[in-house]
Amino acid sequence: MPATPSPLHEIAHLGHAELLTPDLDASLHFFTEILGLRICGRVGDSVYLRTFDDYEHHSLILTGHETSGIRRTALRTWSADALKRRVAAIEARGLGAGWQDGGFGVGPSYLFRDPDGHEFELYWDSEHYQAPPATRPALKNQAEAKPAHGIGVRRLDHVNFLAAEVSTNGTFQRDVLGARTSEQIRMDDGRISAQWHHFGNKSYDLVYTEDWTGSHGRLHHIAFATDTREEILRAADICLDAGVFIETGPHKHAIQQTFFLYVYEPGGNRIELCNPVSRLLLAPDWETVTWTAAERAKGQAWGLRTIESFHTHGTPPVDVADLAIH
Amino acid sequence: MPATPSPLHEIAHLGHAELLTPDLDASLHFFTEILGLRICGRVGDSVYLRTFDDYEHHSLILTGHETSGIRRTALRTWSADALKRRVAAIEARGLGAGWQDGGFGVGPSYLFRDPDGHEFELYWDSEHYQAPPATRPALKNQAEAKPAHGIGVRRLDHVNFLAAEVSTNGTFQRDVLGARTSEQIRMDDGRISAQWHHFGNKSYDLVYTEDWTGSHGRLHHIAFATDTREEILRAADICLDAGVFIETGPHKHAIQQTFFLYVYEPGGNRIELCNPVSRLLLAPDWETVTWTAAERAKGQAWGLRTIESFHTHGTPPVDVADLAIH
Amino acid sequence: MPATPSPLHEIAHLGHAELLTPDLDASLHFFTEILGLRICGRVGDSVYLRTFDDYEHHSLILTGHETSGIRRTALRTWSADALKRRVAAIEARGLGAGWQDGGFGVGPSYLFRDPDGHEFELYWDSEHYQAPPATRPALKNQAEAKPAHGIGVRRLDHVNFLAAEVSTNGTFQRDVLGARTSEQIRMDDGRISAQWHHFGNKSYDLVYTEDWTGSHGRLHHIAFATDTREEILRAADICLDAGVFIETGPHKHAIQQTFFLYVYEPGGNRIELCNPVSRLLLAPDWETVTWTAAERAKGQAWGLRTIESFHTHGTPPVDVADLAIH
Amino acid sequence: MPATPSPLHEIAHLGHAELLTPDLDASLHFFTEILGLRICGRVGDSVYLRTFDDYEHHSLILTGHETSGIRRTALRTWSADALKRRVAAIEARGLGAGWQDGGFGVGPSYLFRDPDGHEFELYWDSEHYQAPPATRPALKNQAEAKPAHGIGVRRLDHVNFLAAEVSTNGTFQRDVLGARTSEQIRMDDGRISAQWHHFGNKSYDLVYTEDWTGSHGRLHHIAFATDTREEILRAADICLDAGVFIETGPHKHAIQQTFFLYVYEPGGNRIELCNPVSRLLLAPDWETVTWTAAERAKGQAWGLRTIESFHTHGTPPVDVADLAIH
Repeated sequence: MPATPSPLHEIAHLGHAELLTPDLDASLHFFTEILGLRICGRVGDSVYLRTFDDYEHHSLILTGHETSGIRRTALRTWSADALKRRVAAIEARGLGAGWQDGGFGVGPSYLFRDPDGHEFELYWDSEHYQAPPATRPALKNQAEAKPAHGIGVRRLDHVNFLAAEVSTNGTFQRDVLGARTSEQIRMDDGRISAQWHHFGNKSYDLVYTEDWTGSHGRLHHIAFATDTREEILRAADICLDAGVFIETGPHKHAIQQTFFLYVYEPGGNRIELCNPVSRLLLAPDWETVTWTAAERAKGQAWGLRTIESFHTHGTPPVDVADLAIH
Repeated sequence: MPATPSPLHEIAHLGHAELLTPDLDASLHFFTEILGLRICGRVGDSVYLRTFDDYEHHSLILTGHETSGIRRTALRTWSADALKRRVAAIEARGLGAGWQDGGFGVGPSYLFRDPDGHEFELYWDSEHYQAPPATRPALKNQAEAKPAHGIGVRRLDHVNFLAAEVSTNGTFQRDVLGARTSEQIRMDDGRISAQWHHFGNKSYDLVYTEDWTGSHGRLHHIAFATDTREEILRAADICLDAGVFIETGPHKHAIQQTFFLYVYEPGGNRIELCNPVSRLLLAPDWETVTWTAAERAKGQAWGLRTIESFHTHGTPPVDVADLAIH
Repeated sequence: MPATPSPLHEIAHLGHAELLTPDLDASLHFFTEILGLRICGRVGDSVYLRTFDDYEHHSLILTGHETSGIRRTALRTWSADALKRRVAAIEARGLGAGWQDGGFGVGPSYLFRDPDGHEFELYWDSEHYQAPPATRPALKNQAEAKPAHGIGVRRLDHVNFLAAEVSTNGTFQRDVLGARTSEQIRMDDGRISAQWHHFGNKSYDLVYTEDWTGSHGRLHHIAFATDTREEILRAADICLDAGVFIETGPHKHAIQQTFFLYVYEPGGNRIELCNPVSRLLLAPDWETVTWTAAERAKGQAWGLRTIESFHTHGTPPVDVADLAIH
Repeated sequence: MPATPSPLHEIAHLGHAELLTPDLDASLHFFTEILGLRICGRVGDSVYLRTFDDYEHHSLILTGHETSGIRRTALRTWSADALKRRVAAIEARGLGAGWQDGGFGVGPSYLFRDPDGHEFELYWDSEHYQAPPATRPALKNQAEAKPAHGIGVRRLDHVNFLAAEVSTNGTFQRDVLGARTSEQIRMDDGRISAQWHHFGNKSYDLVYTEDWTGSHGRLHHIAFATDTREEILRAADICLDAGVFIETGPHKHAIQQTFFLYVYEPGGNRIELCNPVSRLLLAPDWETVTWTAAERAKGQAWGLRTIESFHTHGTPPVDVADLAIH
């Protein structure tokens, strides 16, 4: 038994995220009517929403704010002890921010920041969701009825953060939270420009992408998983007719092979609809797959060029003119 | 040039159908919230509904009535002249019932009955639908936005009638309306127990199935086409969670190879969701495919046994005790 | 009865095409191993191939040649009389080239050229294909077993010709062959730069696209229909791993709404894999949908930019330097 | 820290299985030409096969034998230490059978039996597969090119064992191997008649189903995962045309919600093609879902009756007349 226990298997999965929007009504319409999430709570300017197969209380908190972006990302630990051990490790790094009440079905929750400044919380206690009669599922191994309206996404799948420096955040995720790094992009100067991390058999849960503006704490996108690729094609038609801005896709990523569609919700945040077909990462000794800048430049799996805005758009927006001065 | 011009190519396609229901509210909920049809008109106890890609005004009329069943099936001709010629041919058979106003975007319409007594109408004048702003499609080659709610069926695909005697109705469809018979079931005694007829490249538009009760004018089912097989799998999940009765499927028919799901709408009528993948019947000299009773007994394409109720349930219901007496 | 009978309904469907390739072996490997076509005959440098659901003898003739391109497109008429009438109409236009033996299951065939110079043939007599035991289908309403290898396309779907002048060819297709024009692109100067024509319920069978080089008789692409969109996504993976050049897609066209994937076969010809979901053109009075240059510039349905080579690559290649001189 | 460390997270995943067949040639044809597995080794009467995305050397060993059934199931541990700990735990139960060479890319392997007598092996050392040039994948995060022939399954997904007594085997899997039990069927007399166990985020890897014959060590089925449900529908068509016996499906299980197709390979073993859509089991505190006999009797998710042979067919076959005597 090592003196410092391995952080492996301490984090169970991505729990939920809190997204900020300058237009709460329009964003809420997008998440409920287009994505098919259901409202399960409301406090002040925050609306709690859930995907149909989330076993916990909520998958997303949508909060009206002066700007867009991500406020916080919540991770659930594998046990109460794992939570204690991770808090100790975070505190040892000096990144902790203390305990708070998790709210709405979530017990005590420990706040901290990654090296780039993104806020996270860790928690263990979590009530399993009991659907009300109107949305009770026919099958008891499912949290809630699959919605007949909107795209009907199954789960919050991953969060992709923008960071001024990618690799320090990856080191933190691995050393402190026990993440494993499945894939990454290494530029010719050796700089890691993007890194994909996972806690279980999903091949990624948290991603860091280099922020060309050098800003801190920004968001590239959050992603929701659909049941099938066909549901993403249907989603593209729905978004097209509903006037939702489609940034790129549907197509298949070369990295991670995810079938994707990127849209912007009315608050400006980039939202991915993703489907991994049945691909899982099962190897306990998976070696990080490293893509070179040249390989990355080839575009997506079937040849689609990566769209320019994919490298530049993040939330909240930053004033590039300001950046140019400094 | 024959003295009697061939009826081939005189009927363009199935236009719409009028369905009867003893529970209009519940049926309306099914067709709008589950199937994803949109309401486009209402007169008395009749609600006019449309699928998203119907270029005409409506696809279905749902009428509150003391019982279930089909009131009428409307076919559009290829031209004004074709309409005149078909009316003359129908009258020559003594099955005509006269002209009426088509109502809601449909011009003068000629009523008649097939030999079994099912009511039909023929029409030529038809306004092409202009969607209101709220449901205007993004692509101008589509009638209306694809709905983001419900199953979102593309079109009314076909009608399957029950008939006391199948073959006389088939002869009528071929000789008088110019239908072609793509497939049929022939029992060992030579009796035709089911026949599939089509007017264009779809391999069937109208079907006659033998009514084991010997009744006249009843309905086996009406069918709506989805864009994909995946939408039928999604539909099965939606029906399951919504408590819609699933009779059988999803599976693939051996006859016609259609991917299917059969459900009962709350009024009792059987509704098929169907998808033909990209199969079309292009041959101008297609020979009717005849299935024997033994072949039919093998079940559906991938081996599913045909469910008993599929042979017995029709609308409106008939009192079998009564039948037994006579 | 008009003095000149309408050409409507005289052509039943696209029959087959003859494609030229400078590398017969490599092209043959592509069509059999990747697309999943089966060889059904061979004469000299020509190999006859068929898709699994073609009711006729063959869908494609692949001929070794000094260059790429399309040699001939075959259309089947609705009847023997229709063939005679169309031949008379073609001869009246002075575009006929005389009768020949159709070869391999095809009866007497009449050769002609469209105004741009593409060679066509018309025929009526056609043997319905009888599959050998090894590829006999389980279901008797299908021509041949669905292949377990390659993409397994269902049918030759359409031919897209390059032409120096698009509209004159469209007029010919409509007036002489009875085609109907479902969609077109009209440039700001009134020029028609592309036109989609159909004979039945498929919304297009023959397409003319403006050849920017001003050359005659060239090919933009031929297309094969898959059963599903998912088969096109699978095809993209197969092409990727097999080293087949993917030009663009998968994505959905705005025009005609076809789900597509464009690849180049080893001989240089562009091949489309297409799927229309269940969309059909049923209206007998469909008004041609006209897209403006501005609308066209918006790209494909879900926002994909049309790739540059899509406007420039045709077969056989022409020497652009030569063009510049004249 | 407990004296006996928790077995949780000690097993990484199902590695491979060895299947017995009385007709090696026919079975091999099925696994290569129909399923799309590739041969990667051969020793005596054993052929080593792999699915395209298996990161290890092989997924299946097919061995010619006097009868059908499963010889062995291999599980990979999370580490070398985990292997040692599990071996100690197995030996403490008196079920160990000693070390052997794993063969073909697998290091030292420890043999044991579950309480019902099914043979297993545990191993840690495993070479990551390097595909030969002919099947090298285009994307470096994939083990091998997706096959263009056959169904093209992604991975060996799970093994479903028949056992005389289900619950004792479940206790063993949980206590000794660290499995978690996601779902089970409890009969009215309290007997557990089936139990689903998993090691990671897949909701099951090993299943025990009650053997009505009371025999030991038999197999219900092994399952391979496809990328999509559509690939299972395509598989059904391929099996139909290839004369592969389809037992039941495609349909969706109520338990675990897997989309399934069951066929018999020529050796008599039942093979499942399965697709979980994107469903995963992420909860670290998932409570076993227990289905009653009455719930089980409702059939599959969308209403399909469970076919009789599903309860009776196992391999190797047992002489039921013999059973009756004893």
